Amino acid sequence: VDAGLPPEPSAAGGADAGLPPEPSGVTELFGLLAYASLVSFFRLTQDAARAGSLDDKAALAGMAAAEFGHFQLLSGGIQALQREPSAAMRPFVEAIDEFHARTTPADWVESLVKAYVSDGIVADFYRMVAQLLDEPTRELVLEVLVDTGQAQFAVARVREAIVSDPRLAGRLALWARRLFGEALGLAQRVMAEHEQLARLLDARAVQPAPVGRMFSQLTDYHAGRMAALGLAV
Amino acid sequence: VDAGLPPEPSAAGGADAGLPPEPSGVTELFGLLAYASLVSFFRLTQDAARAGSLDDKAALAGMAAAEFGHFQLLSGGIQALQREPSAAMRPFVEAIDEFHARTTPADWVESLVKAYVSDGIVADFYRMVAQLLDEPTRELVLEVLVDTGQAQFAVARVREAIVSDPRLAGRLALWARRLFGEALGLAQRVMAEHEQLARLLDARAVQPAPVGRMFSQLTDYHAGRMAALGLAV
Repeated sequence: VDAGLPPEPSAAGGADAGLPPEPSGVTELFGLLAYASLVSFFRLTQDAARAGSLDDKAALAGMAAAEFGHFQLLSGGIQALQREPSAAMRPFVEAIDEFHARTTPADWVESLVKAYVSDGIVADFYRMVAQLLDEPTRELVLEVLVDTGQAQFAVARVREAIVSDPRLAGRLALWARRLFGEALGLAQRVMAEHEQLARLLDARAVQPAPVGRMFSQLTDYHAGRMAALGLAV
Repeated sequence: VDAGLPPEPSAAGGADAGLPPEPSGVTELFGLLAYASLVSFFRLTQDAARAGSLDDKAALAGMAAAEFGHFQLLSGGIQALQREPSAAMRPFVEAIDEFHARTTPADWVESLVKAYVSDGIVADFYRMVAQLLDEPTRELVLEVLVDTGQAQFAVARVREAIVSDPRLAGRLALWARRLFGEALGLAQRVMAEHEQLARLLDARAVQPAPVGRMFSQLTDYHAGRMAALGLAV
């Protein structure tokens, strides 16, 4: 939980007070993704500060800066809907902060695995969600998507680390499973707590499919990433 | 001192080993500015995490992301000179890390003052240095410069804080004086330790002026910022 934040004033009387609830769930979707990007920016930067070399530091910091770019795009999307970004993000603060509190990397190599695994899951999610959206929402999501997938550098580093200490493989496989499980848990919680969002992702689904099927696809893609890292699923 | 970094291998046998020392001092200038940007990125992000509202958090994180953009531009400039960015930055790690260790903000309002004061000093420095450089170096410096000056939002916040607690003015004025003094100390140390860089900034100077005059101009501009904050110089 982000203890530094005061109670949210705009929930009751802020800039959004005069507007009816936006029925399509797009504000919720953007609020969720915007806050997730902002927190990833902070978390990745914190992890990058621990890197052993300036090059690794810069590589992970680059992923963080890309997350901030996503946040800016999504904030702009929220403002284009006449909503306040902070009010749109607020409902997701607790669940996302909790996810990160439960998945704090213990060391540098766990940071790399988290960066790679999370970046992959998020990119998969964007790709699947894009198919469910109308223009111009879809366009914004695809714009964010082109800038994901920057974690590729982590794969070589993780494999090197496992070669030099083969016992790492067990711990990291466990870690990656936990990350994936926590990410699905977060997604399920968010869907349960935000009806419009769940409806957006479920009801509009034509091809390929509603939330349940989305989760099973995420699982398949995740298995591919585990193979790239040389880890058991 | 950045304790997480291992001894630098490329100083003796890295990618730059075959190249003669680059005589103009431009690699040193870019190395200095690149490392300063990278560290500012980390420091501002750390400070942003303490913000009391999501809007303030995003505003300071935006400054941090801009610093990472500067780092990327300057790294590219170093690579264009056939040098390794990490080797070019290495000689400045100790002095810059020490500057930040000596100027760690005690709270959120000190973070804002540091962001505004430092961003201003750096922008002044870029502006003055640009006049001393040939193309294409000058162009790169001006490209970085257009993206500085983002700290304007801090002015309103600092003034509000002083209005609601007038005793703050004394502490913050002292803090800003210390920041400026430490920044000049850093600049002097860097000049003393890097002859080519000092020569680049001194010898090529035509109008307006060598290092000594540069410092006195920085002092004038700093006084203007103190007035904007409502603080005694």
